[in-house]
Amino acid sequence: MTVELNALPISQVIANQLEESILKGDLLPRQKIASERQLTSKYGVSRSVVREALRDLHGRGLIETRQGQGSFVTDMVPEPAEDSAFMQSFIGHDSTVFDLYEVREQLEGQAASLAAQRGTREDFYKLTKAFNGLENTDVSGDPQWDHEFHWAIARASHNAVLIHVLSSLDKLMLHSVELCVTKLRSQEKMQQKIDKHHRQIYHAVINRQAQWAQKAAVAHVRYACEQLRKSGLTAEDRKTF
Amino acid sequence: MTVELNALPISQVIANQLEESILKGDLLPRQKIASERQLTSKYGVSRSVVREALRDLHGRGLIETRQGQGSFVTDMVPEPAEDSAFMQSFIGHDSTVFDLYEVREQLEGQAASLAAQRGTREDFYKLTKAFNGLENTDVSGDPQWDHEFHWAIARASHNAVLIHVLSSLDKLMLHSVELCVTKLRSQEKMQQKIDKHHRQIYHAVINRQAQWAQKAAVAHVRYACEQLRKSGLTAEDRKTF
Repeated sequence: MTVELNALPISQVIANQLEESILKGDLLPRQKIASERQLTSKYGVSRSVVREALRDLHGRGLIETRQGQGSFVTDMVPEPAEDSAFMQSFIGHDSTVFDLYEVREQLEGQAASLAAQRGTREDFYKLTKAFNGLENTDVSGDPQWDHEFHWAIARASHNAVLIHVLSSLDKLMLHSVELCVTKLRSQEKMQQKIDKHHRQIYHAVINRQAQWAQKAAVAHVRYACEQLRKSGLTAEDRKTF
Repeated sequence: MTVELNALPISQVIANQLEESILKGDLLPRQKIASERQLTSKYGVSRSVVREALRDLHGRGLIETRQGQGSFVTDMVPEPAEDSAFMQSFIGHDSTVFDLYEVREQLEGQAASLAAQRGTREDFYKLTKAFNGLENTDVSGDPQWDHEFHWAIARASHNAVLIHVLSSLDKLMLHSVELCVTKLRSQEKMQQKIDKHHRQIYHAVINRQAQWAQKAAVAHVRYACEQLRKSGLTAEDRKTF
């Protein structure tokens, strides 16, 4: 193994390691990767070697460089644009909102199950941080921790396809979360139930109870969807997107 | 209701009907829609009204026009390009192939379950046609019916988000099916098992047994993945893509 690795140019070894991180979910879609300077010092190589590695990753379509900002992981499953048909049909039709919830049930259920099976100590550290953030803030005011919590689970699934599919639905999901919060925030009972769901998902994942984690995640998404359905979505609500 | 519809310009009524068909899955991603001439005769309106309706749909991002070929439903979740990172990482890493199978389990299980619940007579007619095609041809030679069968189920789910997410993974899925066929076609026992799975899925869907349909679809994808894993995928196999 060592022989084989040594046979590769060092820039390619570095590129392969970064690629592995992307495919394992350690680096998420649209996440900034370490700067040239940081990579130079991390690997103890010259700047030109690091540049060669980044060019290689660029050539493989795994990263994109933004002028003056550095390099970012690309969206392997591209995201629909803000003005795309998907976004437009959200405004025009309830059915698409509920369709999204159905698909989220499956994908988030699977993410929770895989996170329980494959999460590392580092993943659980990040998940715990997000969970504590959730517990200590008023969700209706700030969806940031909810979003962090969700991503910490997705990342811990270590399934690159799942992570990238979820990422391609990210804007839609944020919209659906906002819709939920706007529409239902005044209902304290519902908030308590959602807090309870988050706790169930969290504990099942870190205790490695895959089936429970999946059930809790599915129940969570289904509950939000049912409440939204009951509340009677209006065209006016959807236009607040 | 009639009053409200009549208040809209007729071109917009036509555009709305076509949009409904897309969101219900009657028109699939990348499917060609009826020609101007066909729409003119279907709705009994002038060509200029039809053109206005198509312009409207175009503006909403729901269709795209290809020079000399007509109009097609757009990919609401865009598909990764043939030379994209996703495709490349298929060649470089087993893990992405297996990651895809895991996600397919969820999405195809859900599609089968929803198809059993929501499929119309027309859906079941198309599904039956594809199933008969599957039963009567040597799959290893021609994956067309397998693909038709899969799409007939997806379409019958009547969930636009699910249909478009599956569509965004279409090229990858075709590759994974080809990989499976190439790698495992010589094993008659496996082929029999897969034929049995197809029959189970088909009968569960048309008998509206949602849970059985889901279980059978999940078992089908899981089996193919396990066989592929056992067979020991090599870089050489992946390069045949």
